Amino acid sequence: MKKLTHIDRQGKATMVDVSDKSPTLREAVAGGSVYMKKETLRLITGNQIAKGNVFETARLAGIMAAKQTCGLIPLCHQLNLTSVAVAFRVDRKNSRVDIEARAKCSGQTGVEMEALTAVSIAALTLYDMCKSVDKGMSITDIRLMEKRGGKSGEWKRNKG
Amino acid sequence: MKKLTHIDRQGKATMVDVSDKSPTLREAVAGGSVYMKKETLRLITGNQIAKGNVFETARLAGIMAAKQTCGLIPLCHQLNLTSVAVAFRVDRKNSRVDIEARAKCSGQTGVEMEALTAVSIAALTLYDMCKSVDKGMSITDIRLMEKRGGKSGEWKRNKG
Amino acid sequence: MKKLTHIDRQGKATMVDVSDKSPTLREAVAGGSVYMKKETLRLITGNQIAKGNVFETARLAGIMAAKQTCGLIPLCHQLNLTSVAVAFRVDRKNSRVDIEARAKCSGQTGVEMEALTAVSIAALTLYDMCKSVDKGMSITDIRLMEKRGGKSGEWKRNKG
Amino acid sequence: MKKLTHIDRQGKATMVDVSDKSPTLREAVAGGSVYMKKETLRLITGNQIAKGNVFETARLAGIMAAKQTCGLIPLCHQLNLTSVAVAFRVDRKNSRVDIEARAKCSGQTGVEMEALTAVSIAALTLYDMCKSVDKGMSITDIRLMEKRGGKSGEWKRNKG
Amino acid sequence: MKKLTHIDRQGKATMVDVSDKSPTLREAVAGGSVYMKKETLRLITGNQIAKGNVFETARLAGIMAAKQTCGLIPLCHQLNLTSVAVAFRVDRKNSRVDIEARAKCSGQTGVEMEALTAVSIAALTLYDMCKSVDKGMSITDIRLMEKRGGKSGEWKRNKG
Amino acid sequence: MKKLTHIDRQGKATMVDVSDKSPTLREAVAGGSVYMKKETLRLITGNQIAKGNVFETARLAGIMAAKQTCGLIPLCHQLNLTSVAVAFRVDRKNSRVDIEARAKCSGQTGVEMEALTAVSIAALTLYDMCKSVDKGMSITDIRLMEKRGGKSGEWKRNKG
Repeated sequence: MKKLTHIDRQGKATMVDVSDKSPTLREAVAGGSVYMKKETLRLITGNQIAKGNVFETARLAGIMAAKQTCGLIPLCHQLNLTSVAVAFRVDRKNSRVDIEARAKCSGQTGVEMEALTAVSIAALTLYDMCKSVDKGMSITDIRLMEKRGGKSGEWKRNKG
Repeated sequence: MKKLTHIDRQGKATMVDVSDKSPTLREAVAGGSVYMKKETLRLITGNQIAKGNVFETARLAGIMAAKQTCGLIPLCHQLNLTSVAVAFRVDRKNSRVDIEARAKCSGQTGVEMEALTAVSIAALTLYDMCKSVDKGMSITDIRLMEKRGGKSGEWKRNKG
Repeated sequence: MKKLTHIDRQGKATMVDVSDKSPTLREAVAGGSVYMKKETLRLITGNQIAKGNVFETARLAGIMAAKQTCGLIPLCHQLNLTSVAVAFRVDRKNSRVDIEARAKCSGQTGVEMEALTAVSIAALTLYDMCKSVDKGMSITDIRLMEKRGGKSGEWKRNKG
Repeated sequence: MKKLTHIDRQGKATMVDVSDKSPTLREAVAGGSVYMKKETLRLITGNQIAKGNVFETARLAGIMAAKQTCGLIPLCHQLNLTSVAVAFRVDRKNSRVDIEARAKCSGQTGVEMEALTAVSIAALTLYDMCKSVDKGMSITDIRLMEKRGGKSGEWKRNKG
Repeated sequence: MKKLTHIDRQGKATMVDVSDKSPTLREAVAGGSVYMKKETLRLITGNQIAKGNVFETARLAGIMAAKQTCGLIPLCHQLNLTSVAVAFRVDRKNSRVDIEARAKCSGQTGVEMEALTAVSIAALTLYDMCKSVDKGMSITDIRLMEKRGGKSGEWKRNKG
Repeated sequence: MKKLTHIDRQGKATMVDVSDKSPTLREAVAGGSVYMKKETLRLITGNQIAKGNVFETARLAGIMAAKQTCGLIPLCHQLNLTSVAVAFRVDRKNSRVDIEARAKCSGQTGVEMEALTAVSIAALTLYDMCKSVDKGMSITDIRLMEKRGGKSGEWKRNKG
């Protein structure tokens, strides 16, 4: 039967002991979307410079947050990322911006939380930059897309 | 015509100058949900102590993250929160956990980002604690529910 | 009957809501001691320059830690300290160093935790600087000495 | 004759250069106690849920602080902990709570400061949660219990 | 005779006690320059998008660093900035980029260090982004240009 | 033709992917100077204890900042420094203080930014401690002096 690795036998929250694991190359990709009004999407994409700067700000926020993950998620391990990349795709039809983050490191533990944190903070930064015109924006479908490395090996999300 | 307050006339990212605003009591409520397998929800709610500790860990992560918001969101102002509260509700029918965060301060700028950051990091912490059994969990509908205070006054999300 | 302000009716950890409190001048003094071998005390006090630098390092660590208190203590409020001072007194007879920290701010909540954090981190820094010669050092009697300001007013520790 | 490794020949504070050391598995255990009134101990242990949450909050604070050690102790090295565990034991006879923290990493420098920092911040968090009913609580006997790994090898505290 | 406010009578480093000062509007402007090879300047300004992104990255780094000033400069007070702005000017003739940062807050202490920190970290970020092609770049003339507010009132740098 | 490694083909800011690099010993030395009035230099060097403490404060600020580099410079990698040293030299003739910082680590990426950050924050700390008597001080010639390790190997600044 499955059990939660972060809860010990007495029900206490616990950081997993990874001392005996060998360092391997780890990689994780996470995604998410920010839904907004069509007018808001036009405002951030209408002007080439403004568009660049809205997305650059969100991208840098995501990259910097990934490096702070272990300070945000209580039971996360410290690790030294070798790469973080954050990309945006404008989906005019659905009036949303899709965000994808990819994180890598060579370590004893995976980088799923780093990729997910990068997406979350990039999404919150988009919200912050547009909230004066569109308080109703919503951040949705933040999820792991794929991971590689470590004992559990490769995992890919099933596409519906 | 509406414009983005965080993008100046030349298209550059900019922190809004709130020097001339008067401090007022600010309050914001944000919400979000974490969808998971039914088995995962059973694991975190089956045992009273474990349940408490999973939610306590996520709650504290959310509260602590709210206090770090201005270090995560590049153009956010520093402010001293007077209250942050994070609550969880288990929705067995939809196999999800709903998260609500409420933030308050007396200041020159709103606390929407603090409430949204608390929800996001609490959700990521739930993911972290359950990811060994359910990598496919997804975080969704992170959005502002209501805000009070400041020049723009009260705002409430329309219920569908 | 007394109750814990940080635990709500359902037993959940909670940050006290201080939104309705008026800002007043707050002050707190905390103390603590680091016991060590006589030889260790001689090493850090034997040379005037070395002595200065060991204590300066511990003092700065204490001051900087006081400013980070709300990031360390989960349910602590953010506040802007107007003063932090850390002082050391060598007690050769008892082979220990006494540490005293004083913190002040004008705010809606007290600065006890800031003064106690300054003492604790200053003590740990003394330990760190001497641990190569004396791993057995112990940090003891970290406690609040006095506080002023706020609704509960003045409090002084009873001297034995 | 012994000398302080953190003070150079001219008496200046210095970070030890560990570039030439080989990474080995490091482990450290630290302990400490928080003395309080009998009534306070009853308040935090009387109710099963409240008790869990007081200790969970202190535990998480200790774990998160351990990961921040190099940002708190000026001359401490950065390292990636592979495990941090914090445990509590209620000692009703002496009206105190004993705290024990264990830290591990594979690195070029020891983890004594990480274990001691975890104990200190867990103790301060207990103080914070009970200070409304018992300002006179005191934190005492924070000390290294044992360490393993590195050139100096194993060390154990003498039991009185 | 003049004396250093950060060194007390016994020669110890000390944080100035500003508890008795009244909050006033504070403003500071700082400047600095980054000298580089002509080829490097061409690389960062040749393409409109790349240019925007190099400067946006440096701008955001400067803004975010200003908010962290009290965590970097040991004796600096915590304060809540109401505005930080960072601007760049390309000086092709002298093959350099000029940086100007402006910080504001309503508080008991000045914001000179915040403006200077914003310039310094923006300059270091430019260095970081160009160091693969020009390790010899130098950061120079980081200095206060003007300040307003507080007891010492207005100050302006003499132009040569 | 040379290109910026931090700007990708589409002109976006990017963190260099160092996953495939082998860890080697890295070392970097950076320098910088703080110009001040002769009277200011006399104040910080006149008294042996005060002088020690001004420089100790700046030294510790530089060392601690080096450890925070990846949180300040957006596209910098996380790494675990094995050594950071900061030294000061008083140049009475030119009425300035020269600062030199040396950083080391074993890693997949260089430590130039860590050494430069240490110099910058040490310089800002000197400014902070003297600004009450000399607002016109200027920080200048912050530059890399030498580096070793990694694929690009050794680099030394040409002495004019």
